[in-house]
Amino acid sequence: MRDLGEFALIERMNAGRSFGGGVELGPGDDAAVVAAPAGRYVVSTDMLVQDRHFRLDWSRPQDIGAKAIAQNAADVVAMGAAPSAFVVALGCPAETPVAFVDGLVDGMWAEARRAGASIAGGDVVRSPQVVISVTAFGDPRGRTVLRSGARDGDIVAVAGRLGWSAAGLAALSAGAAGAERFADVIAAHRVPRPPYSAVLELPDATEITAMTDVSDGLLADLSHIAESSGVAVDVDSAAVADPALSPVADALHADPLGWVLTGGEDHAFAATFGAGTAIPPGWRAIGRVCTGSGVFVDGARWPGPLGWESFGGGEQHAVR
Amino acid sequence: MRDLGEFALIERMNAGRSFGGGVELGPGDDAAVVAAPAGRYVVSTDMLVQDRHFRLDWSRPQDIGAKAIAQNAADVVAMGAAPSAFVVALGCPAETPVAFVDGLVDGMWAEARRAGASIAGGDVVRSPQVVISVTAFGDPRGRTVLRSGARDGDIVAVAGRLGWSAAGLAALSAGAAGAERFADVIAAHRVPRPPYSAVLELPDATEITAMTDVSDGLLADLSHIAESSGVAVDVDSAAVADPALSPVADALHADPLGWVLTGGEDHAFAATFGAGTAIPPGWRAIGRVCTGSGVFVDGARWPGPLGWESFGGGEQHAVR
Repeated sequence: MRDLGEFALIERMNAGRSFGGGVELGPGDDAAVVAAPAGRYVVSTDMLVQDRHFRLDWSRPQDIGAKAIAQNAADVVAMGAAPSAFVVALGCPAETPVAFVDGLVDGMWAEARRAGASIAGGDVVRSPQVVISVTAFGDPRGRTVLRSGARDGDIVAVAGRLGWSAAGLAALSAGAAGAERFADVIAAHRVPRPPYSAVLELPDATEITAMTDVSDGLLADLSHIAESSGVAVDVDSAAVADPALSPVADALHADPLGWVLTGGEDHAFAATFGAGTAIPPGWRAIGRVCTGSGVFVDGARWPGPLGWESFGGGEQHAVR
Repeated sequence: MRDLGEFALIERMNAGRSFGGGVELGPGDDAAVVAAPAGRYVVSTDMLVQDRHFRLDWSRPQDIGAKAIAQNAADVVAMGAAPSAFVVALGCPAETPVAFVDGLVDGMWAEARRAGASIAGGDVVRSPQVVISVTAFGDPRGRTVLRSGARDGDIVAVAGRLGWSAAGLAALSAGAAGAERFADVIAAHRVPRPPYSAVLELPDATEITAMTDVSDGLLADLSHIAESSGVAVDVDSAAVADPALSPVADALHADPLGWVLTGGEDHAFAATFGAGTAIPPGWRAIGRVCTGSGVFVDGARWPGPLGWESFGGGEQHAVR
């Protein structure tokens, strides 16, 4: 990258890209211009740091780029908003091969397209390790869906996979990167696939009272809904169990229920629906909102940590 | 920060803050919601890396926070937009003192307020050194002002100081951090003060044809206007010279014109105005747009580099 220079690099990153309808002015000026047809927009930002959130020997650059976009897009969709644009700030060592950046940017664009948006601009700087900071924008569809609207009696439901990323991380940590039988969960760890359409295609009449994406772990993220809403949440362990994880857990001598309940980074969506609501396509009921506070599993407190915290006990993981 | 944890830290960063009118929903949910009364918004992002863009022994955390916001706000204002909100992603080592983050966030809020906006949300992660990624938003006032509208015969004008940050960097590099006679330029290097109001209070009838902020160096940034507009720019060295820099340059045996023409990070604004336009308050004419291409000083090519490039020859500076 030192040989190419910042401006040539940015030109290369944007060559041949066509910007979506939401981006009125793309890269090349002091700032981009993005449409906000609703008169407001939703915005979320996340930073990914090499050897903390990804490892260059475990993921291809395409995977890292896709993951960075997916986790931000999931935050926007979790507000009930449709992704419209992303901006990306990238820090890299000067000796970074240009092919790495090409792959990263290709992965970002692929996931941005999957989310229905494009990349409106960014910044490239020199840094000792790879750092990726993504800011995501979205157009609210009607009202925004907050974490704070869950009420006693609501149904708790989930769209998307749970525990797959944690299972993949466990497989990678065990040195099983090339093992065929772990291929699916390792792919899920490398690139989460948030089921955007399960949210964006919800029928307008759906009585959805609260929503979040599962980034820190199901129990941790449901505890945010419970706290914001002043309620308790009880999860039915039989309803969340995923038989596809059992052979992986057996091989690694792990507890698949722990992955499902406390594993982060799958970026599934968790929501609460009004008591009488028919569960929409792509969603499955996994529990119920009740009075009280906190999160329960089958009526009891979960004995371990509920999920991941950035400055908490991160050392037990090889990477997060 | 390890002791406090991510969520307590974020709570602490937001305690007692009141969010401005543009921020409809602040931190605490999956995403923030920001108003876009014009039906569109301007967005810019920049990343600052420890020991590359700032040094912890040269700047207080308040200064670093203010600088991070100022350079992003300047990009938004350079489009002719009024800053409305910022989001901040922050990477820090786990052993970072909480007082450092307190100072950083206070500096960010102070500069955000000076720009007329507030901080709508962010992310905090662990990283080997301090990394700050800011995304800034603004409301366009009428049409956006691009780099591409300059025409033959236009007047080139500047609002704000030039060369002060470069002079301050030179003084710091010479080990003159405590020297009273360098205090003003060192302060200017630590915290740029973009003259937002010179742009935001431009009379509506002002015929402004192109604008940018001076982040890489006056000649470098004018060359972007020249290239985007398909014109040449000629700068009058007598008009840009700043007598206040002469004693500093004499003491450091440096060329003050080099600082003024190629020093970055002052975040002054450079613009072109239609030929007959009266120069507005806060602005001074420094040159003229002409046919051709590239940037000239008193009719001749500048013999050295025009300014700063991220992956270019950065090693001659102690920090950028």
